[in-house]
Amino acid sequence: MKYYIAKTVSYPFDEVVKRTTEELKNEGFGVLSEINIHEKLKEKLDVDFRKYKILGACHPPSAYQALQEEDKIGTMLPCNVVVQELGENEVEVAAVDPVASMMAIENSKLAGIANEIKQRLVRVVSAV
Amino acid sequence: MKYYIAKTVSYPFDEVVKRTTEELKNEGFGVLSEINIHEKLKEKLDVDFRKYKILGACHPPSAYQALQEEDKIGTMLPCNVVVQELGENEVEVAAVDPVASMMAIENSKLAGIANEIKQRLVRVVSAV
Repeated sequence: MKYYIAKTVSYPFDEVVKRTTEELKNEGFGVLSEINIHEKLKEKLDVDFRKYKILGACHPPSAYQALQEEDKIGTMLPCNVVVQELGENEVEVAAVDPVASMMAIENSKLAGIANEIKQRLVRVVSAV
Repeated sequence: MKYYIAKTVSYPFDEVVKRTTEELKNEGFGVLSEINIHEKLKEKLDVDFRKYKILGACHPPSAYQALQEEDKIGTMLPCNVVVQELGENEVEVAAVDPVASMMAIENSKLAGIANEIKQRLVRVVSAV
């Protein structure tokens, strides 16, 4: 099962991070965390990894609804969007597919929320 | 399928956040993000939700190994540990079970890493 929604674009890395953040905002998501994997791996393991950022995106009304349906859903929130550099001006955006990541959870109300968030993330990735 | 490893303890909320962070450190995890859901929901939706924090825990050597096996695994990183207040001095710690959250990913090498991380998280929750 595919667990992400991805697209490769031809902009510089930082530009893609900026565009992704803007498109997330247009779909009602705030970015609650931004993890720079490139920097972290250099700092912790002294390895050179490509440019790779994880944006933690949260759509507050859906998160609130999900938390009321499933109190431990925070273990799978926020929804991550990865921006990684594949080559010069070749950058991939990949959003988690919440329907796939939450497939272990047996809760039909949650499945509906996950599917709605998936549709938002499909539009975000498509618009970057 | 159970998608978390949880335990309820009898300490004040902030103390549980501190103990969880320390136990994560003892198992080699750094906390890369800390999301205060209580504050966020108040700020964004003006609703009163219980004390609820999401700690984003990363074990750098395992994360590096996982990223080499599966380049979009960042959509499911870091591993979240939720601390939520159920009542006075009744606080639950719940770590994601990475074996459950990553079940949609068909990659046997990744499954091995997820299982090792799960064992670390079981020890963390048990020690809090």
